[in-house]
Amino acid sequence: MTTHRFIPTIFHNVIGSLPPALRIADGDTVVTETLDAVGYDKDGVKQTSGPNPMNGAIFVEGAEPGDALKVEIISMIPTRATGFTRSVVAANVVDPETVRDLPARDMAIWVIDREALTVRLSEPVAGLENLVLPLAPMIGCFGVAPSLGQAISTATSGEYGGNMDYRLFGPGTTVRFPVATPGALFFLGDCHAVQGDGEIVGTGVETTFEVTVEKKAGLVWPRGETAEDIFTIGNARPLDQALQHATSEMLNWLASDYDLDRTAASHLLGQVVRYDVGNVFDPAYTMACRVAKKWLVRR
Amino acid sequence: MTTHRFIPTIFHNVIGSLPPALRIADGDTVVTETLDAVGYDKDGVKQTSGPNPMNGAIFVEGAEPGDALKVEIISMIPTRATGFTRSVVAANVVDPETVRDLPARDMAIWVIDREALTVRLSEPVAGLENLVLPLAPMIGCFGVAPSLGQAISTATSGEYGGNMDYRLFGPGTTVRFPVATPGALFFLGDCHAVQGDGEIVGTGVETTFEVTVEKKAGLVWPRGETAEDIFTIGNARPLDQALQHATSEMLNWLASDYDLDRTAASHLLGQVVRYDVGNVFDPAYTMACRVAKKWLVRR
Amino acid sequence: MTTHRFIPTIFHNVIGSLPPALRIADGDTVVTETLDAVGYDKDGVKQTSGPNPMNGAIFVEGAEPGDALKVEIISMIPTRATGFTRSVVAANVVDPETVRDLPARDMAIWVIDREALTVRLSEPVAGLENLVLPLAPMIGCFGVAPSLGQAISTATSGEYGGNMDYRLFGPGTTVRFPVATPGALFFLGDCHAVQGDGEIVGTGVETTFEVTVEKKAGLVWPRGETAEDIFTIGNARPLDQALQHATSEMLNWLASDYDLDRTAASHLLGQVVRYDVGNVFDPAYTMACRVAKKWLVRR
Amino acid sequence: MTTHRFIPTIFHNVIGSLPPALRIADGDTVVTETLDAVGYDKDGVKQTSGPNPMNGAIFVEGAEPGDALKVEIISMIPTRATGFTRSVVAANVVDPETVRDLPARDMAIWVIDREALTVRLSEPVAGLENLVLPLAPMIGCFGVAPSLGQAISTATSGEYGGNMDYRLFGPGTTVRFPVATPGALFFLGDCHAVQGDGEIVGTGVETTFEVTVEKKAGLVWPRGETAEDIFTIGNARPLDQALQHATSEMLNWLASDYDLDRTAASHLLGQVVRYDVGNVFDPAYTMACRVAKKWLVRR
Repeated sequence: MTTHRFIPTIFHNVIGSLPPALRIADGDTVVTETLDAVGYDKDGVKQTSGPNPMNGAIFVEGAEPGDALKVEIISMIPTRATGFTRSVVAANVVDPETVRDLPARDMAIWVIDREALTVRLSEPVAGLENLVLPLAPMIGCFGVAPSLGQAISTATSGEYGGNMDYRLFGPGTTVRFPVATPGALFFLGDCHAVQGDGEIVGTGVETTFEVTVEKKAGLVWPRGETAEDIFTIGNARPLDQALQHATSEMLNWLASDYDLDRTAASHLLGQVVRYDVGNVFDPAYTMACRVAKKWLVRR
Repeated sequence: MTTHRFIPTIFHNVIGSLPPALRIADGDTVVTETLDAVGYDKDGVKQTSGPNPMNGAIFVEGAEPGDALKVEIISMIPTRATGFTRSVVAANVVDPETVRDLPARDMAIWVIDREALTVRLSEPVAGLENLVLPLAPMIGCFGVAPSLGQAISTATSGEYGGNMDYRLFGPGTTVRFPVATPGALFFLGDCHAVQGDGEIVGTGVETTFEVTVEKKAGLVWPRGETAEDIFTIGNARPLDQALQHATSEMLNWLASDYDLDRTAASHLLGQVVRYDVGNVFDPAYTMACRVAKKWLVRR
Repeated sequence: MTTHRFIPTIFHNVIGSLPPALRIADGDTVVTETLDAVGYDKDGVKQTSGPNPMNGAIFVEGAEPGDALKVEIISMIPTRATGFTRSVVAANVVDPETVRDLPARDMAIWVIDREALTVRLSEPVAGLENLVLPLAPMIGCFGVAPSLGQAISTATSGEYGGNMDYRLFGPGTTVRFPVATPGALFFLGDCHAVQGDGEIVGTGVETTFEVTVEKKAGLVWPRGETAEDIFTIGNARPLDQALQHATSEMLNWLASDYDLDRTAASHLLGQVVRYDVGNVFDPAYTMACRVAKKWLVRR
Repeated sequence: MTTHRFIPTIFHNVIGSLPPALRIADGDTVVTETLDAVGYDKDGVKQTSGPNPMNGAIFVEGAEPGDALKVEIISMIPTRATGFTRSVVAANVVDPETVRDLPARDMAIWVIDREALTVRLSEPVAGLENLVLPLAPMIGCFGVAPSLGQAISTATSGEYGGNMDYRLFGPGTTVRFPVATPGALFFLGDCHAVQGDGEIVGTGVETTFEVTVEKKAGLVWPRGETAEDIFTIGNARPLDQALQHATSEMLNWLASDYDLDRTAASHLLGQVVRYDVGNVFDPAYTMACRVAKKWLVRR
């Protein structure tokens, strides 16, 4: 298996059927440096503009519609010493009348300590003088070209992946995307140094990942796997619909890979399911349906 | 402080301005046995019918509108050896077209082992033969009388609490409700042996809790606290609105008790907030906004 | 059939199982004067406070759970020369970021000309100097006691009716409510002089209506009828769910009274249905599903 | 001004930045025949597949980002004697538990009488034997290329237009779209013979329209105009959000073209606004915010 160092010269604000910038074989590994969400590189130079510039398209040989593209996130290392975030929560996560109360949304700078593996605000904020967070890098936006030759803004998300901002998309996690076009056409970018449920410290990140094709995988929505959990992703508004998509996908997964029919799967989910919120800012919200592996027996 | 053993003779399917069945002082402790969600007691005798029969009203001396009623859940012990759940996920948590796929919703019985502190299905289900879950009791439905003399079905929830089915409402958790009527008029019932995010194994439970009045507390929505976390609750549909309520309440809490203004609170939430899903079955859904105490300094 | 002049001395901010203020026979007519939404009477005297004080409960002899209470709105005459409205649209009907833009919500006074049957702003607003609207009175909030002995705030709505603010609830319209408690316990108030979809000019109104009991009617949600249309009401959030309730109720109505099975009803709705928006301000939104009678043959 | 007869040889399932199939001048008129939603032409020959094949892209000289593309729908004439629809309402417009009740979704054929200007089911359905509907053709899916070089499936909709299925998009209506790319790149297709709020009889239609560029128009969402009304369109889920977009756009329109500030516009909308439902089937729902011209004075 080959390891590719992928240095894109063009960045895209969509995920879609665009000319490949890299061609790799099934099983290859890729190392690439992403820009931050508004287009700055590791040296603080603005290479392009937002939203969420993507590295891609990566054409994976052998990937066909109906297959899954399996992406193992091997490592993520910030490429620079700062990240940024918005200074105020988004208007859509508070009560409508509370919006009048919110200060304007500015940028805030965070200092990334790549030795201590921590993150802190660059300028002291009253009450948070001692806030030092552990570095917890993750990919904010990634996925494969959607069906019908579409090219969709990296501000949003769908069955193909996209801007999901889910904190479990970090090193050690494996993600499967439903392939809709030959070669899959994989994109990634908008990596974060750390985030809660819904917001982010974006920065440049060097990401290493391995890509494999799984034939006739039958998934509709992205699926993920960590050492402890399996999870499915739904992207939609309102969150209720995202939850419906993620739950329906989990029912299908439990049936096909764990031999649990609708009733058995319902019993299990009823007692052990966890729902995690990803993005609640962009046009489509993200909900994960998560089950601990300790409750599962793979057939 | 007095400990009351509260043995109700009448159960209610609403939370509201009803005649008190018990009067207690600020700081007293109450021990009471609840029925399951459809009205069966510890001996398997049907005492009343659903939804979610309540023990109450408990009048707490000194509680006035604008105060908070603080409820510390001290212990929860199942009173019988079985619980029940529905055999199939609710139609509203899967995609509309997937509903056609679901089997009918039956009852399933679970065996509660009160020595081993575990729960398992009473009849084997293919693929789940070895599923043994740890007992994790919690209160499904509790709260105080809502404003305006209302009396609201225990099938739903609101600012006053109600049927929230959130798994952190168990022993060791302290919950605060916004008092809307003199004496607060506290109700509880629908206790569960264990549950995931959204579904339940309901059973009879003996619950012990201590009740305290906090004057002029200024909360709008329920607030909770465990050893590790503080959390706020929003009850509404869609989940987006429940999330807005919970986030707005957390912003207020962080301002009043932790001296974090909107900007500081936004920075903190942005990186460390967790959103948990409670009930996604009843007319109002439940979302918790949770922050680990390790990031907080109480002023 | 008797005509009752109902002059309440107590007003309620809930619809629910309260002691009857009037008892009438099946088929009787009632004439009553309502206060405005914040409690002012025809003389501008504040009799009580909001939200939406109700005249009621009216106990209708013979009404039992499972029946429908049929209410024919015969006439509505404003009792005073002014009404009021909020000066700015509600924060929840604009984009979250647009809320920052909105001026504060004040009261505005409208002059009701009861001879010309028109309404205009009492103080000139730039650009609306010549705005004179036809009087179009309607009932903002009415319904029957909900199930389980509930008493629910007149700020919201549900299967029992409530604060729906739908412009077709005016003279000439017949409404059916699902009876949940003996005597039905009918309430009304919050009448409007005119309104668009979603907002209102509230005022005092003398309303005359006739009440009839229809046995075993089998409705779940309110149903209405004008000279031209039949319609069903769903009350919920988001509007999607209100639309689901209203459509499901219409499918049931078309099956039972018009002999149209699911397929025939779908064909008809597909080509001729109209959805109208009622309240989009209160905790539950209101959506009407409407079909013109010219397309229907009553069996 | 030139009239172009546009006979496309390729059809697209996306609206986006694709090579122009026709170039026209500002003010030109276009006559074109569209396929039905699944790709059949006027002779019943399948030319391509769904969803909603588009005629386009039409490049309009002089159109630049920030401008509006004004499209006047001059005439719409069905090109064949049949249309089709689904036989059952969509699962997402009824209550989740009601979905179990619905028959399978088949195709139904409708006969279009182009002399009588009527539509009826080709095979009798019990209860609808005499249903004859007036022909009321409209454009189901049209719009301009979205921003960022996107190409978005014709199954959905957004600020650029798309699959909106709103019954007022018929002859006599003028629509304005926000131009996001040079030449605007206009597409249209999926024309209907008649429809209610939300569903359709799709067929082939010959459509004639005139296209004009309005410089620096400042619109964010589509705007429309009939002889009686002006309206704005919001496309999103849930309907609440579509309503927010449409209302926000209307506030902007009333400010810029009718000199009504937020307060004056609120007063007007409060009493005369009508909300109409378009598509409630596709990923984004459509809501129109409509105001009668008789209440407006153009500055």
